[in-house]
Amino acid sequence: MIMEISAEGVRSGDERIIARVISQVENQRQQVFPLLKELYRSTELAYLVGITGPPGSGKSTLVEKLVLSWTAEEEKVAVIAIDPSSEFSGGALLGDRIRMGKISTEKNVFIRSMATRGYLGGLNPAIFDTVVVLSAAGYQKVVIETVGVGQNEIDIVRLADTTLVVTVPEAGDEIQTFKAGLMEAGDIFVLNKADQPTASRMGLILKQMLEMNDSENHSSDNSDWEVPIVKTVGTEGEGIEELRRAVMQHRDFLSRSQKERYNRSRVIRNHVVHLMEEFLRNHYIDPLLESPVFQEILAGISARKTDPYTAVEQLLKSFNKEQGKHEN
Amino acid sequence: MIMEISAEGVRSGDERIIARVISQVENQRQQVFPLLKELYRSTELAYLVGITGPPGSGKSTLVEKLVLSWTAEEEKVAVIAIDPSSEFSGGALLGDRIRMGKISTEKNVFIRSMATRGYLGGLNPAIFDTVVVLSAAGYQKVVIETVGVGQNEIDIVRLADTTLVVTVPEAGDEIQTFKAGLMEAGDIFVLNKADQPTASRMGLILKQMLEMNDSENHSSDNSDWEVPIVKTVGTEGEGIEELRRAVMQHRDFLSRSQKERYNRSRVIRNHVVHLMEEFLRNHYIDPLLESPVFQEILAGISARKTDPYTAVEQLLKSFNKEQGKHEN
Repeated sequence: MIMEISAEGVRSGDERIIARVISQVENQRQQVFPLLKELYRSTELAYLVGITGPPGSGKSTLVEKLVLSWTAEEEKVAVIAIDPSSEFSGGALLGDRIRMGKISTEKNVFIRSMATRGYLGGLNPAIFDTVVVLSAAGYQKVVIETVGVGQNEIDIVRLADTTLVVTVPEAGDEIQTFKAGLMEAGDIFVLNKADQPTASRMGLILKQMLEMNDSENHSSDNSDWEVPIVKTVGTEGEGIEELRRAVMQHRDFLSRSQKERYNRSRVIRNHVVHLMEEFLRNHYIDPLLESPVFQEILAGISARKTDPYTAVEQLLKSFNKEQGKHEN
Repeated sequence: MIMEISAEGVRSGDERIIARVISQVENQRQQVFPLLKELYRSTELAYLVGITGPPGSGKSTLVEKLVLSWTAEEEKVAVIAIDPSSEFSGGALLGDRIRMGKISTEKNVFIRSMATRGYLGGLNPAIFDTVVVLSAAGYQKVVIETVGVGQNEIDIVRLADTTLVVTVPEAGDEIQTFKAGLMEAGDIFVLNKADQPTASRMGLILKQMLEMNDSENHSSDNSDWEVPIVKTVGTEGEGIEELRRAVMQHRDFLSRSQKERYNRSRVIRNHVVHLMEEFLRNHYIDPLLESPVFQEILAGISARKTDPYTAVEQLLKSFNKEQGKHEN
């Protein structure tokens, strides 16, 4: 049975209530939609900061320090840590999530680990719904942290208003491999562990890559924004103030240039498309997977009496007939 | 206009024809389904070898050496290199794809680079269709190579009959971060660059992790298969013979234990589900995205007159009504 939670409960900001709603968003999605509808219409979405980078680049430490710099200014901040190792909720926490435990006991900070993908595959639809819940609960900033090597992870941080891409001096190979998606996603680049001897070389490589990317993408979202490279030593807190300022400057840029509205409409568009995919799967694919008809089809394909293409066409035709019947 | 290619053309094994069909599979999917249907019913699928591992672990060199060891035995081998940096066809080739150019001029070897994801998001549906084409063209083995850090990449190699997970001595951090998916996906682990001083330590870590994983997963696909760790120095060709043998042993294991049939039915199931998702998107979501109705909905959500959840419910209801009309 689902525990009834009111919109007022969420807006009260009680962390136990918020945690419970997020669990429902992950596991009992259909039942929680009435609440989400109510929250959505009365909520200004929080400012979304995405942060991504290879494993071991020190993202969590940077997030911790940034979050503390914001709470010092009386802001409420939530962190959604996207966990690639768990296929859906209940998966193992990463080591660096545990390190972030330090700030999880802070007042005005809420931390939640979520899976990259939903149980149906594809981006976890609960991520954006969680942003709605956290916004309604009064968090002014929501940080979404991913390990940014796969396309799913890049997609998630691209939902953010401001996206930080973290690199480290030794990440040369990785950066080159994934530059296409990463370069476009980043509004601010962070060169962490900047006290290492190879940092200045990496700084130059990054700068060149950004310039190259810039000259190739005249029409990109960031055409009027000069993507800065901020050097940090997360463990020492060095460069955090510069980073905080860079985020603020990007936010100012977005609202000055009307890009904020553009960003928001992109977020809404993605949310609607993902919800549609989810509803279509729930409606058409899920019930099928359990059915004897599906087993027969698979057996037919195995025996090469039919093929996957014909089978799917026939299935969709039978859906349409079903629907025709129900509606009349 | 689509160039008409016959099933005989594909079966002739002409590399230019195969390349053209694969381009059609990527870009003109609907039109090529009749050909795929015909090929599917008359084709025994090739043996699929998946290979994954972090960037810089030397996968491409290993693939090159393995492929040469197979062609030396008169086998025809194709390689599908999954390229995470290109969102859909036409994306940049990775540096290591160029290195693989060495074998691309070999007789009996076909190499193709493909995007991880289709242009609609989600796993690129063309990957499995390409396996059908290559099988029909007489390739006995198809190697699918991914950079195995994201869940999409792991999903792709899990489609394979035998999956190799490549690690290197310095990959400690990465392995630990992604162990959940990787450990389950691997039928054979390869410790490449095994001439490095830290290799034996990494070998021990790997062994412990495999043992741990083993005791946790009694009911996994590999419950009767002892996952070997093969040490290689790809650049020197060391360990390639052992690796070739390990693949053969796993293949023998699969056919002895009836797991091959089980694997195949899993491949078919995934293929059907992905095709269904694709057809549903083509049918419901794509036409909508271009429509004025969709723009109105987004504007309504922006103004918070409605919300994404209500909007999607209403859209699906209107689809059903449409369908009811068409069918009667």
